[in-house]
Amino acid sequence: MSRIAMGLAYDGQPWLGWQTQPGGRTVQDALEAALARFLDQPVATICAGRTDTGVHALSQVVHIDTSVQRRAESWVRGLNALLPQSIAVQWAQPVDDSFHARFSALSRTYVYIVRNHRVRSPLSHGRVGWVYHALSLKPMQDAAQRLLGEHDFSCFRSSECQAASPVRTVQRADVIQMGDHFLFVFKANAFLHHMIRNIMGALIYVGLGRQPPDWVDFLLNQKDRRLSAPTFSPAGLYLAHVEYPTHYALPETGVRELCATHLGIC
Amino acid sequence: MSRIAMGLAYDGQPWLGWQTQPGGRTVQDALEAALARFLDQPVATICAGRTDTGVHALSQVVHIDTSVQRRAESWVRGLNALLPQSIAVQWAQPVDDSFHARFSALSRTYVYIVRNHRVRSPLSHGRVGWVYHALSLKPMQDAAQRLLGEHDFSCFRSSECQAASPVRTVQRADVIQMGDHFLFVFKANAFLHHMIRNIMGALIYVGLGRQPPDWVDFLLNQKDRRLSAPTFSPAGLYLAHVEYPTHYALPETGVRELCATHLGIC
Repeated sequence: MSRIAMGLAYDGQPWLGWQTQPGGRTVQDALEAALARFLDQPVATICAGRTDTGVHALSQVVHIDTSVQRRAESWVRGLNALLPQSIAVQWAQPVDDSFHARFSALSRTYVYIVRNHRVRSPLSHGRVGWVYHALSLKPMQDAAQRLLGEHDFSCFRSSECQAASPVRTVQRADVIQMGDHFLFVFKANAFLHHMIRNIMGALIYVGLGRQPPDWVDFLLNQKDRRLSAPTFSPAGLYLAHVEYPTHYALPETGVRELCATHLGIC
Repeated sequence: MSRIAMGLAYDGQPWLGWQTQPGGRTVQDALEAALARFLDQPVATICAGRTDTGVHALSQVVHIDTSVQRRAESWVRGLNALLPQSIAVQWAQPVDDSFHARFSALSRTYVYIVRNHRVRSPLSHGRVGWVYHALSLKPMQDAAQRLLGEHDFSCFRSSECQAASPVRTVQRADVIQMGDHFLFVFKANAFLHHMIRNIMGALIYVGLGRQPPDWVDFLLNQKDRRLSAPTFSPAGLYLAHVEYPTHYALPETGVRELCATHLGIC
């Protein structure tokens, strides 16, 4: 048996999230169906981050164990010929048995893309969040910086979250404006259920001037989900990067570069 | 009665092109259904350029005649609430009776966006053309310049084209590279059926090194569709701008700005 790691991009719109379900309409089900055809035997997949319904990936990382030998190029081309148009393997390579897509991950980076325009765009529907009223960059940047470091994120945690602890360490929380688009970048050791969509709801409130930037401090201190803003749409949310120890030598593509190649946004 | 002009953006993927059909699965049918609900009476629409199945619009222009009075803002918001997510009115304004979306148009500008990458992207599927092998910018630019001016475009004309003459005047034929994306911009008084997709097929052949740039001169001289490359995919094709006499004072948004706001590509 050998272990293969793969990088996966997908459009989350047609799928009920990553994790397998009886109806089979999940990214994991689609990937495992393609793998079963490619390898002519069933195989289980483990992923780095279980994305929700409608959430996309620029670089989800998955590993499998198999006795079948294929060249790296063959994994990519063979699987992509069998996968639906909304999912594509971007790279594949052998890794040693100590690698685990979920447990070896050092951090996850998500990006959220918002279009700030008075009129909706039919060309970014489902792939970019949309805010009608004008957003202010500086207050959102100020608010986002308050998320950095180790905090109890109970205020941004879904009631369905099954994590043992609400404490997470946020290493990056950037807000970048590019014309009508705002790019939000969040990096943490791990995220709670709906954490980014709940943070986005709060940052948008700040961007609209409904709350000041230090409202984020208040929410973090109060630890009460009911005080924060509604959960923001999944439309603009992308799992963008998963960091592993460098000795695994997995392909490293920057978040901005991934946004540019898949979304044109740079 | 007063005449209203509207700018429309749409994702062509769910639709069998612009022009109304008995089955009703066209952009015109969807727009006229929304208008009938908004105005509480049927109304006919005239457009600037009848896009084919799967072809998108950043700025299609349409006019209608109606006795119903609405504020410009109300046309946009009211219709967008009734239109499917894949279609949205971007602006609306009254115009005098001499305006005709088709016959008053001085030129049409289309853009074609190609992703040049070894792996397909599930996030741009259907909205961006894809070329696997590396494209060379300079030869494509050289080839594109040979399209400028008045020519008999029979070599790029679909056998189903119903235009009286194959002669058209191309005013702009630019190829711009932005990282993994190539943006092709074509402006002409009007285009023949499948003309841009057929030109794209030829430019891609040149970009791949299968033909030299002066192959375009040869094709134009031979006037024989069978000598050229296959018709390229509709996926990356957008009606981007329609030019009218300035006295109509319609909103003018640059092509690059439209690409940026709708596609993130800039």
